[in-house]
Amino acid sequence: MKPVAHIKLKKAMNVNGLVEQMNLTGVLGAGRLAKAVNICEAMITDKDCKVFLGLAGPLVPGGMREIIIDAIESKWVDVVVTTGATLTHDLGEALGYRHYQGSADADDEELHKKGFDRIYESYMPNKVYEGMEDFINKNFEIIKDKKSIKEFLWELGKLTPKKSILKACFENKIPIFCPAISDSGIGLMIWGQLAKGRNIETRTFEDLKEIIDVAWTAKKAGVIYFGGGVPKNYIQQAMQLVPKSASYGVQVTMDRPEPGGSSGAELKEGISWGKLNPKAKFVDLICDATIAMPIIFCALKERIK
Amino acid sequence: MKPVAHIKLKKAMNVNGLVEQMNLTGVLGAGRLAKAVNICEAMITDKDCKVFLGLAGPLVPGGMREIIIDAIESKWVDVVVTTGATLTHDLGEALGYRHYQGSADADDEELHKKGFDRIYESYMPNKVYEGMEDFINKNFEIIKDKKSIKEFLWELGKLTPKKSILKACFENKIPIFCPAISDSGIGLMIWGQLAKGRNIETRTFEDLKEIIDVAWTAKKAGVIYFGGGVPKNYIQQAMQLVPKSASYGVQVTMDRPEPGGSSGAELKEGISWGKLNPKAKFVDLICDATIAMPIIFCALKERIK
Amino acid sequence: MKPVAHIKLKKAMNVNGLVEQMNLTGVLGAGRLAKAVNICEAMITDKDCKVFLGLAGPLVPGGMREIIIDAIESKWVDVVVTTGATLTHDLGEALGYRHYQGSADADDEELHKKGFDRIYESYMPNKVYEGMEDFINKNFEIIKDKKSIKEFLWELGKLTPKKSILKACFENKIPIFCPAISDSGIGLMIWGQLAKGRNIETRTFEDLKEIIDVAWTAKKAGVIYFGGGVPKNYIQQAMQLVPKSASYGVQVTMDRPEPGGSSGAELKEGISWGKLNPKAKFVDLICDATIAMPIIFCALKERIK
Amino acid sequence: MKPVAHIKLKKAMNVNGLVEQMNLTGVLGAGRLAKAVNICEAMITDKDCKVFLGLAGPLVPGGMREIIIDAIESKWVDVVVTTGATLTHDLGEALGYRHYQGSADADDEELHKKGFDRIYESYMPNKVYEGMEDFINKNFEIIKDKKSIKEFLWELGKLTPKKSILKACFENKIPIFCPAISDSGIGLMIWGQLAKGRNIETRTFEDLKEIIDVAWTAKKAGVIYFGGGVPKNYIQQAMQLVPKSASYGVQVTMDRPEPGGSSGAELKEGISWGKLNPKAKFVDLICDATIAMPIIFCALKERIK
Repeated sequence: MKPVAHIKLKKAMNVNGLVEQMNLTGVLGAGRLAKAVNICEAMITDKDCKVFLGLAGPLVPGGMREIIIDAIESKWVDVVVTTGATLTHDLGEALGYRHYQGSADADDEELHKKGFDRIYESYMPNKVYEGMEDFINKNFEIIKDKKSIKEFLWELGKLTPKKSILKACFENKIPIFCPAISDSGIGLMIWGQLAKGRNIETRTFEDLKEIIDVAWTAKKAGVIYFGGGVPKNYIQQAMQLVPKSASYGVQVTMDRPEPGGSSGAELKEGISWGKLNPKAKFVDLICDATIAMPIIFCALKERIK
Repeated sequence: MKPVAHIKLKKAMNVNGLVEQMNLTGVLGAGRLAKAVNICEAMITDKDCKVFLGLAGPLVPGGMREIIIDAIESKWVDVVVTTGATLTHDLGEALGYRHYQGSADADDEELHKKGFDRIYESYMPNKVYEGMEDFINKNFEIIKDKKSIKEFLWELGKLTPKKSILKACFENKIPIFCPAISDSGIGLMIWGQLAKGRNIETRTFEDLKEIIDVAWTAKKAGVIYFGGGVPKNYIQQAMQLVPKSASYGVQVTMDRPEPGGSSGAELKEGISWGKLNPKAKFVDLICDATIAMPIIFCALKERIK
Repeated sequence: MKPVAHIKLKKAMNVNGLVEQMNLTGVLGAGRLAKAVNICEAMITDKDCKVFLGLAGPLVPGGMREIIIDAIESKWVDVVVTTGATLTHDLGEALGYRHYQGSADADDEELHKKGFDRIYESYMPNKVYEGMEDFINKNFEIIKDKKSIKEFLWELGKLTPKKSILKACFENKIPIFCPAISDSGIGLMIWGQLAKGRNIETRTFEDLKEIIDVAWTAKKAGVIYFGGGVPKNYIQQAMQLVPKSASYGVQVTMDRPEPGGSSGAELKEGISWGKLNPKAKFVDLICDATIAMPIIFCALKERIK
Repeated sequence: MKPVAHIKLKKAMNVNGLVEQMNLTGVLGAGRLAKAVNICEAMITDKDCKVFLGLAGPLVPGGMREIIIDAIESKWVDVVVTTGATLTHDLGEALGYRHYQGSADADDEELHKKGFDRIYESYMPNKVYEGMEDFINKNFEIIKDKKSIKEFLWELGKLTPKKSILKACFENKIPIFCPAISDSGIGLMIWGQLAKGRNIETRTFEDLKEIIDVAWTAKKAGVIYFGGGVPKNYIQQAMQLVPKSASYGVQVTMDRPEPGGSSGAELKEGISWGKLNPKAKFVDLICDATIAMPIIFCALKERIK
């Protein structure tokens, strides 16, 4: 048995140095955070491993957008699965809008009158819908024939005027999936076109062919989840078709396992399903994604290459 | 200000009687549970109100299936939105499979060998996929032309041999939506057909027309959420198009608001978005759905009609 | 393996009937709530078993006072351990004050001006301190010689003018412990006397003799925890001295285990410490105490005698 | 309104540099963590401010001991309040024992046989009790006359052979309070002496004089809580007697507010009680203490002096 070493702080310590101290504790939040960095490093630097990144929660309104783009552009991940909300926030910023620092105790009726939509303590200006409607309306003829959601999203990425998660995926040929895209501001904008009598070809089940193909042909696979929801579950489902199941797993969530939902389920549960290899390296980290993500990726930046 | 009355228990008290005692406390979990019953009763008995039910989490493996079917057959709800997992569990049971009582401390590798998939402390036999594959394969020609997910699900409901959530929705003409249906066992079975070269017409954005139409034409709307995820978010999105936004809201979740995700967001946040009317009656109940749902619906059974 | 049975609701079902349906599900929150009732019933009706009740959290401001008094008067428990806050709230009500229904979104500065202290969404009138100061001042000569906290509390119970948790313990000769009594409104009132130069004999470690004596001589022991904190930990500590450790355990909490604190620790952890017998019947129920307590005690009322 | 800036990571970034990036997001976990650092810095460098540090949870088994000792030796805090468990773990390490890296999935019966007590995923060797018994037995004549718990603890600190939290408090004349000291391994060792017929003078209410005296005479006060429980509540209680209430507040916890207990209560609730000044700078950070503490103190190390 290894003893728990006590963290020793130094002045002007760098992030990776602190993570290495945390690794020496080996337990609880600090130990798990360090283990998450170790496992991410292992899967990203394993040439045989396809890395699947699941993103849910307010990552863009929470200031994580550059970190995500950076990870995609560095080719640390091979597949991205996310929510419609994340892509809506991403597209909004690509069109020139911003999110704002607010308060969870705000007067929501007042905010509504002023045109701000609250996401816990950040605000999205409601005007973003106007810009997005113009954008979708103007480009509808181009996107309407996309048969899979991934092709639809890549096209949006190609069309966005600025750097974005969508554009980074398109430019780096990283497949990006969003099974519930209709459940989002982007979805609403498409509905606006349908309401005018236009049509769009995008099929519900089409993307399964591509994500499962990546899984099926992977020598090894690794999963990194920030938040749960559909992104986690959709990747977990694909892991059942990886010949050896996932070999690496990192999950960062604030949801708890006892209610039994997929979002809070511990990764080890996946072993019973054949989603996770019994010999996989994995860790469940109970932490706000906006705290864990910068620390993990900052330490990785120092460690990789 | 009203004083907090202390609950007085009696022998052989009925559930609604206990809820009424809880209502007299007026605070914390007990007070909120009672308020949830009051608000559900108000929206269900309000002739002008369309009731939207969002269902996420392990409700079928958790023993809630009959309660949900009963609520649909009683026409207490006008729209159901749920997850692919819930429908997979529901279809599995309709095809004759069961879920089993297990343990969260089980050996997952052992379970995998024995063919049981763990959902916290309940187990699903992996064989369910065989039955489901046969079912989908046999009926593929019938379902492959369904353009919306709702039509696809109603057709499944029509085809299921036994009582089920799907069948209850079909028979009672309750629209049932599942934006992320591809993220589920049912989705995997459809992929199996696609992998054989077959095609299915189901469109991603198509259902938006129907759910928004119900919202748009509703004099009033009420929302009931057990769990968060896409079901909650998809209904919340529709509420933006109800002329007066939602007039009633009940949310039951174990997720917390501070990480900022949609699942844990307090209902009042929806006021800023125009999803909830500032004068709405609403309550956030922090409780395991399998505890709250039987109590709420049992009390409603005594109160309604 | 037992299948998960689905709960069937009936009109005018009584609480114990619903709990029995929950028992048939056998899993998740509902299954655990039913198991909690079963285990409480078993330990209370086991003649050889000493039952230790740990109470933390806002049980009195949350409307649970009558239920607790009823359990004590029914002699369902042999030892009570609680917090100074609970006893302060209890004494306040015994002196004629009430708690009030409020809002978690209240303006706290405004409440302060109006003289109300907020406990999430219930309010305590600050005036309670005046009545308590008079009460302590008037009776100081009687209580100042009490060497143990238990004797101090029994004396308070004897002196309270009305029915209370304190009085019920005194009258039924149920030892009541509160190791951190100085951390409470009652503590502050005693400080007021010390500040005037008076003295009080109460010793910090004295009660250990009595609680450990009960533990040491118990043929069997059972523990019931609503909330964690010192009440749980102090009882757990005593369990180490029960010859067979605890044979029954029920814990109701909203705290999570992963941060590693005693309050959220799963009961099974106690096996490693010799606090819980490896063959004990026990359950961890993740639920708001104000929801679980009325249901558990209501079902017990029907089952016992 | 300020926009949410997106965090930009650099290679070999230092911890304070990352915290400053988090500060620019201004929202959610990252923004709150940065705000916690800012407020700690402000209160520690405010010459008029007395800083009260509350410590609960598995900080010593979690590897935080050196950080805490460092903060005390740097005189960043003026008062420490903690749990008996923390002091037991601290004394155990001072006597030469260690905590060990373990697993939350361990076989607790096996651990019990091997003599290891589990604290989530760290282990304490049960032998620590033997060393502690010798230590207390040998020194009982010296400690038995200590009338207040603080004097008792300072004496323990003086007697410990090695660097420890207790010794750091004693040597730096930082008052350390532990109202529930009887609820701990140290308490059990004292009980061992009482069981032999020895006596100890320590009084329950005695320390209130000293902590309230510090509060009463403070020009300003600041509070820092890692975890809740008695340490937080005891400091909060003292804040009612600071003439201007607390001017600064930082709380790090994983407990949630809705169940209404003191541990999870948001700091703003304290405004209603007169514990927190309505103009105070304060933040509630929802984070595992073993993650937040190293980051906060590492950034402070770079900022202060």
